[in-house]
Amino acid sequence: MPTHQDHVDPRTRSEHDLLGDRDVPADAYYGIHTLRAVENFPITGTPVSAYPDLVTALACVKQAAALANRDLGLLDGRRADAIAAACEEIRAGRLHDAFVVDVIQGGAGTSTNMNANEVVANRALELLGHRKGEYANLHPLEDVNAGQSTNDVYPTAVKIALDFTAQRLLDAMDVLRVAFAAKAEEFADVLKMGRTQLQDAVPMTLGQEFATYAVMLAEDHKRLTEARELIREINLGGTAIGTGLNTHPEYAALACSRLRTITGLPLTVADDLVEATQDAGAFVQLSGVLKRIAVKLSKVCNDLRLLSCGPRAGFAEINLPPVQAGSSIMPGKVNPVVPEVVNQIAFEVIGNDMAVTMAAEAGQLQLNAFEPVIAHSLLKSLTHLRAGCLTLAERCVTGITANREHLARTVAHSIGLATALNPHIGYEQATAVAQEALVTGRSVHALVLEKGLLTESELQLVLHPDNLARPHMLTGAPSPT
Amino acid sequence: MPTHQDHVDPRTRSEHDLLGDRDVPADAYYGIHTLRAVENFPITGTPVSAYPDLVTALACVKQAAALANRDLGLLDGRRADAIAAACEEIRAGRLHDAFVVDVIQGGAGTSTNMNANEVVANRALELLGHRKGEYANLHPLEDVNAGQSTNDVYPTAVKIALDFTAQRLLDAMDVLRVAFAAKAEEFADVLKMGRTQLQDAVPMTLGQEFATYAVMLAEDHKRLTEARELIREINLGGTAIGTGLNTHPEYAALACSRLRTITGLPLTVADDLVEATQDAGAFVQLSGVLKRIAVKLSKVCNDLRLLSCGPRAGFAEINLPPVQAGSSIMPGKVNPVVPEVVNQIAFEVIGNDMAVTMAAEAGQLQLNAFEPVIAHSLLKSLTHLRAGCLTLAERCVTGITANREHLARTVAHSIGLATALNPHIGYEQATAVAQEALVTGRSVHALVLEKGLLTESELQLVLHPDNLARPHMLTGAPSPT
Amino acid sequence: MPTHQDHVDPRTRSEHDLLGDRDVPADAYYGIHTLRAVENFPITGTPVSAYPDLVTALACVKQAAALANRDLGLLDGRRADAIAAACEEIRAGRLHDAFVVDVIQGGAGTSTNMNANEVVANRALELLGHRKGEYANLHPLEDVNAGQSTNDVYPTAVKIALDFTAQRLLDAMDVLRVAFAAKAEEFADVLKMGRTQLQDAVPMTLGQEFATYAVMLAEDHKRLTEARELIREINLGGTAIGTGLNTHPEYAALACSRLRTITGLPLTVADDLVEATQDAGAFVQLSGVLKRIAVKLSKVCNDLRLLSCGPRAGFAEINLPPVQAGSSIMPGKVNPVVPEVVNQIAFEVIGNDMAVTMAAEAGQLQLNAFEPVIAHSLLKSLTHLRAGCLTLAERCVTGITANREHLARTVAHSIGLATALNPHIGYEQATAVAQEALVTGRSVHALVLEKGLLTESELQLVLHPDNLARPHMLTGAPSPT
Amino acid sequence: MPTHQDHVDPRTRSEHDLLGDRDVPADAYYGIHTLRAVENFPITGTPVSAYPDLVTALACVKQAAALANRDLGLLDGRRADAIAAACEEIRAGRLHDAFVVDVIQGGAGTSTNMNANEVVANRALELLGHRKGEYANLHPLEDVNAGQSTNDVYPTAVKIALDFTAQRLLDAMDVLRVAFAAKAEEFADVLKMGRTQLQDAVPMTLGQEFATYAVMLAEDHKRLTEARELIREINLGGTAIGTGLNTHPEYAALACSRLRTITGLPLTVADDLVEATQDAGAFVQLSGVLKRIAVKLSKVCNDLRLLSCGPRAGFAEINLPPVQAGSSIMPGKVNPVVPEVVNQIAFEVIGNDMAVTMAAEAGQLQLNAFEPVIAHSLLKSLTHLRAGCLTLAERCVTGITANREHLARTVAHSIGLATALNPHIGYEQATAVAQEALVTGRSVHALVLEKGLLTESELQLVLHPDNLARPHMLTGAPSPT
Repeated sequence: MPTHQDHVDPRTRSEHDLLGDRDVPADAYYGIHTLRAVENFPITGTPVSAYPDLVTALACVKQAAALANRDLGLLDGRRADAIAAACEEIRAGRLHDAFVVDVIQGGAGTSTNMNANEVVANRALELLGHRKGEYANLHPLEDVNAGQSTNDVYPTAVKIALDFTAQRLLDAMDVLRVAFAAKAEEFADVLKMGRTQLQDAVPMTLGQEFATYAVMLAEDHKRLTEARELIREINLGGTAIGTGLNTHPEYAALACSRLRTITGLPLTVADDLVEATQDAGAFVQLSGVLKRIAVKLSKVCNDLRLLSCGPRAGFAEINLPPVQAGSSIMPGKVNPVVPEVVNQIAFEVIGNDMAVTMAAEAGQLQLNAFEPVIAHSLLKSLTHLRAGCLTLAERCVTGITANREHLARTVAHSIGLATALNPHIGYEQATAVAQEALVTGRSVHALVLEKGLLTESELQLVLHPDNLARPHMLTGAPSPT
Repeated sequence: MPTHQDHVDPRTRSEHDLLGDRDVPADAYYGIHTLRAVENFPITGTPVSAYPDLVTALACVKQAAALANRDLGLLDGRRADAIAAACEEIRAGRLHDAFVVDVIQGGAGTSTNMNANEVVANRALELLGHRKGEYANLHPLEDVNAGQSTNDVYPTAVKIALDFTAQRLLDAMDVLRVAFAAKAEEFADVLKMGRTQLQDAVPMTLGQEFATYAVMLAEDHKRLTEARELIREINLGGTAIGTGLNTHPEYAALACSRLRTITGLPLTVADDLVEATQDAGAFVQLSGVLKRIAVKLSKVCNDLRLLSCGPRAGFAEINLPPVQAGSSIMPGKVNPVVPEVVNQIAFEVIGNDMAVTMAAEAGQLQLNAFEPVIAHSLLKSLTHLRAGCLTLAERCVTGITANREHLARTVAHSIGLATALNPHIGYEQATAVAQEALVTGRSVHALVLEKGLLTESELQLVLHPDNLARPHMLTGAPSPT
Repeated sequence: MPTHQDHVDPRTRSEHDLLGDRDVPADAYYGIHTLRAVENFPITGTPVSAYPDLVTALACVKQAAALANRDLGLLDGRRADAIAAACEEIRAGRLHDAFVVDVIQGGAGTSTNMNANEVVANRALELLGHRKGEYANLHPLEDVNAGQSTNDVYPTAVKIALDFTAQRLLDAMDVLRVAFAAKAEEFADVLKMGRTQLQDAVPMTLGQEFATYAVMLAEDHKRLTEARELIREINLGGTAIGTGLNTHPEYAALACSRLRTITGLPLTVADDLVEATQDAGAFVQLSGVLKRIAVKLSKVCNDLRLLSCGPRAGFAEINLPPVQAGSSIMPGKVNPVVPEVVNQIAFEVIGNDMAVTMAAEAGQLQLNAFEPVIAHSLLKSLTHLRAGCLTLAERCVTGITANREHLARTVAHSIGLATALNPHIGYEQATAVAQEALVTGRSVHALVLEKGLLTESELQLVLHPDNLARPHMLTGAPSPT
Repeated sequence: MPTHQDHVDPRTRSEHDLLGDRDVPADAYYGIHTLRAVENFPITGTPVSAYPDLVTALACVKQAAALANRDLGLLDGRRADAIAAACEEIRAGRLHDAFVVDVIQGGAGTSTNMNANEVVANRALELLGHRKGEYANLHPLEDVNAGQSTNDVYPTAVKIALDFTAQRLLDAMDVLRVAFAAKAEEFADVLKMGRTQLQDAVPMTLGQEFATYAVMLAEDHKRLTEARELIREINLGGTAIGTGLNTHPEYAALACSRLRTITGLPLTVADDLVEATQDAGAFVQLSGVLKRIAVKLSKVCNDLRLLSCGPRAGFAEINLPPVQAGSSIMPGKVNPVVPEVVNQIAFEVIGNDMAVTMAAEAGQLQLNAFEPVIAHSLLKSLTHLRAGCLTLAERCVTGITANREHLARTVAHSIGLATALNPHIGYEQATAVAQEALVTGRSVHALVLEKGLLTESELQLVLHPDNLARPHMLTGAPSPT
């Protein structure tokens, strides 16, 4: 694929592939394969560069492969070093705007791999003192892609990108968890009514309610960490279908070792490269865990919106900090906009999981050709969940306040207190008190005293917050007959 | 496939297919093909007979085909009439227990079709004075299935079954709509606070709230009626792949005409039978509409649970009738169990839609082999939605009562009333009043009077229910400066 | 909300809302509400301007509302005309880059509405000779948003945007349908084996196969057209919750009339505005139809990939035009990349439908707060499906060629021909011939001749393409005994 | 709740709850709460007894609670022992038909818990010499449900049931894995063309193809085992909302210890019982893993159907054993019905996962009221996947044969062999050979010899199966120039 001697337009250079010649902008780091892909896939308008972690991961893989090939004597040192240097630049954040192919593309990621090959080659050519497109000196396919196939490069790069991005989400989940835990401590002594099936149940503390959210996040953090381990098993070295055709027997292990060093991740070579090349199971697992996180976050946000609903005709137990005006027509209205946006992120993530599921199921024989939409969906889910966690922590949770007096009143007037009386006055009498309270609108406390079922001091003990919100058997209190 | 002369066990009869001989219970109306299918597909434990509408629909199709074949001189009158008579019995509800193949089965419905062929044949044989299995006199394939293929019989029968079952759902939706409409009338004068984003917004009537649910159901009724029309286009006569190989040119029209008469449905023959044979679009559309109904029903039930949450620490706007004890541990607790079960039906229907979607997408070339799971999913969705509508109407909606005094108080104390003052005292002053009300806990009404912004009679007019809950421009009232 | 006199930095202007003052870039058409929203929702990085149809639709609504308010004497002509002129500019494609809020946002679209109010107001101010931010002369909320609420403006604008975008998809579907129909004509005489359950079935023409795809698209075109009608029912005039509080009784009808003229769409006011304000049913229906289109397109692309699989070890019935190199490691390999990208779009659309479903179900009481993710999902699905249809038509379907000789051979050697012999030599003999052909590898044709079952001329007639691919009863041919 | 003295009909007994009196069939082990639930939830027609593992698990929990209460002196030994004995009977498979409530029910499982309480109580009463319904001697709520709430009993029982059922699936997966592994060994020496994107790629062995499926199953086995560990953390002892109100501080640990012994499972008490009571995360995770298994099984079945498609016009690489006649109209046709039914199970499981997701997200505050549909969906998925694995192993995989000669021919004639020549004749010459082979229909082998690029013996070496299907660098062979 020589650049043609009769090419005269200085704004372009001519490149060649099996379909013929095409002019590429002279200053473009990408080449003819990228150009065709851009034309073939005008789908989402979102280029691969929208995911910097993916661009970086591609550079890591190209660098590792070049060094492994050099070690095996399959690529001369000068070209290998130029390739490695170009990759270092990309990993440092440069040249990302040359990754222009659409994130959703046919060809199992071939166009993304080609885009990477071309950008690395052209930058390496410059580093070697050549001009872009002078592929006789260093070739995108023969050199940059040496010993590789899209079918091992692309999934390996996607997994590394997912790992990088997952770490950012894990960090954001920690921020949110800490925010909830701080509120749990702040509200540790605030007694309130717990609810089951949206009906008043038995007392608990607002601190317990918020501690729950922190615990949920801690558990999800563990699940995501586990799922991340699954994507650290790579198939680099399997080439086209996992048989490693045309590769040196030591290449896979060597390339993986180089990649471990470059990325800092504990990557391993899959035991069965044929299986690993066609398998989308790790992506499905990761997506399932992201869906789990989304489900839990959405549940938490539903709770926050419920607990803060009001200000007069709702629960009004907590106040979310106002972050913007809620309405142009309703003066003074403030809405739970931050939980609402997190709900929507959750719905999107659940939808993304469906796209991943469909794409994974559609894989045929030795390859899953639909990995680009899997990568796109997972990277979207990870980044949006991260944004949601941070926004929720910083613009909502940390500013939450409790309506302590109102909460105290709801406990004092609650019929649910009757449950705590069960061991002391018996289920039958407790039921009678509960029903009278419901009909008359009076408090359980007042009725128990009036009927002489317990003394004021006994009641104080039974209904003491320390006894209501955790397992407790009052030994000194009157027991049921 | 003769019954073997040397067969001696009176409890069984021997039948034959391309895999060899098998003993079938002597009194079984089904035959060897059904027997093998039962063995091959021990999946759900749910036999086809669980859907009586599907069994009936299969009988309708077999009857129509027999009569059309008789009209064309392709089946002699005696056998055709016996087949028709057997089908009439099935349509009257008999022999359903002989439809024993699992609802989920491989083979694009072949086993269900074979089951129908065998049951009809054996019953027709009896009507002709023969014993079961004496297929030389009337054959399941040569006669009952004459001019047919599973690939036109099964989807046609499924569509007719869906039509029958959809009618039952439509009737149940009407029952629920009427129940909501009755409540809308009963609560037409009950003013309450409307809510947006779970925050107090502006006043409305409880009647308007319930009228909304009736309107939703009426709209969904229309959508389901439309979707049902799409499944009235059938491919009977297309045989294996829609080309109608081996059929008489007049057969398709004639069979459809017979089927129209038998079912009472306005069925039509698809314009392009090749397309119709492989197309699952009508099923996807129907499933999408059922999902829509599920989404709306779930939203309504979410609302009912919200509005009734309490009794003390929640909205407590309405009361759902108690239908069972809510808790063994909490005396007197009553839960919204009927809306809760409808929510769960909705979730199941949404899941079923996903199964239908996957199955429809998986169709290849000239046939969708996955129609059994499509049929199963749709029939489940239709019957469960019907059960949900009836249960919700009869065990919940008709018994709902309103907490009128509490609702009146929430409106009187609402800060949302400030919105209604906008045109009269201006947005700025309305905002000031709203903020003071929020901080002090006082009512908008009292503050407006105290500040002399409006007179008592002006306020009465502005805040009159007739003016709050619908478009209204007060001409006599003071206008904003 | 005056701009402050003591503001000195020329690069910014100060604006005010209920949370206090903020500096806005002096040249920004958006204002403080938009600024806060951008800070609150750093989620997807995709601004509202990514959907030009939505920006245009917002301008249409603002223009219609201003004109209706002018007609009713509620907005003076000078300001109304300035607002209308600003909206005209936006509709002409200008100022779109000022619509900067994230497409996924909390607040039921409030931030998008605020963004529109501010851009229109600031441009109108300029047209009136004022500077941006001088809201005393024309106010984003008091004037541009007069008589409106996010809760009627946003869903109305989203529906109009969906209508505009749906039209583009419909046009693209027509392009693809025409491409398939042209191939159907081109291949009308190419006989091939049809397949059911991926097994050789009976003959058909390649033309029939492609005609099917054209018919599918025509049907989906109808369904989308129907779904589009449902989104032409709007709730403008309902204000906050549909009761139309503070609106003139004639406003809703008047605004809708203006909007009809401006958009050219046959919009109608919903009968029940309370229901219409909270209802997401039309969105669910539209999404369901888009899912149906996706399912069908994916099925078609699966078929194209199957039919073209090869070149040696697969079906190899058709050739897709090469549009890029398929592999760096496998010389000369060309892949079905265009159908593959359409598959992925389909998976994404199916995922988007799930997000829409979740968001619709989550609506509570008088409003669905999650309409932004519904709008985002639907607009994505529409635009990506459009891109997929056009790419598939132009870069794949139009260049498809048939391997006519190979297809002729597969029919000649097919065992499936035995089915066509059924009426002439009987099912028993046809089965025997089929089984012998399978075991010996010989052709049905040769075996029938050899056994003297039919003469050469009879066979020619029975196996004539005109008789194989459509209903046909040969009267002159030998009939089964 | 005494049985009424004036009750005279011997066929019934009268029972009482907060809604009043009802007659229960005299011989029914269930009581009034169950009766009402059956009337309230006529939804699916599937009773809880359809899941024997769930009935058994309920008995385990009731037995453990009774023994723990006895140990703590909260239940006298005579009643505790009678309860334990009744539970033992249920665990042995008796009385299951008394578990009659619908699997989908409102009330967070209350009706299932009530059903269990009543059956255990009535059987225990009999063991103590009383008649059913004589609850003064042993009470369903006071005694059988002592110290418990539906909200800790039901999720605990569901988790145990899932564990039991998951073990059955794991066993079935092992059966299928072994079947695939046996075929991998059988076909270890059968060279064939691997395919990527459905296009001929490079050679591999059929053994490698089947080994992949065994590896996939082994990995999924690990994932399911991990997910099962998460459901071994229970919340028994948390009572209504996890605060353990009214329980003895040692009860939770003691009951869990008893339950470990009874079930043989390594159960643990959750660290935070409030979180554990409302959390559905473990269910979502399990469902996600089941979805992953479904996706992989479906992919495998898609492959099996592809590889066996034919017999003449398809891949025809392998033969699935015929298990039933495939068609009534097409003589001798045999279809891949077993893989097809597994595909459909997979679609259903993916749909079930959606139902689980929706239900989990819908949980509010201190409880997820929708656990019944979660339990139903998961138990269905587990049992149907198990059936699918066994059917696939026994009725399909073990009988698969390879068309060895045909496969050898496809490799010999494949253009994909050109890839293996890359290192020996160079990418340029390999491409030229590939293109000439494609155009002329000749083999790569013949062309290489004719052109004198390699000798016959060199070619033998390069194209030796041992070198084609795994990493290999030929040192003695000619290297590229």
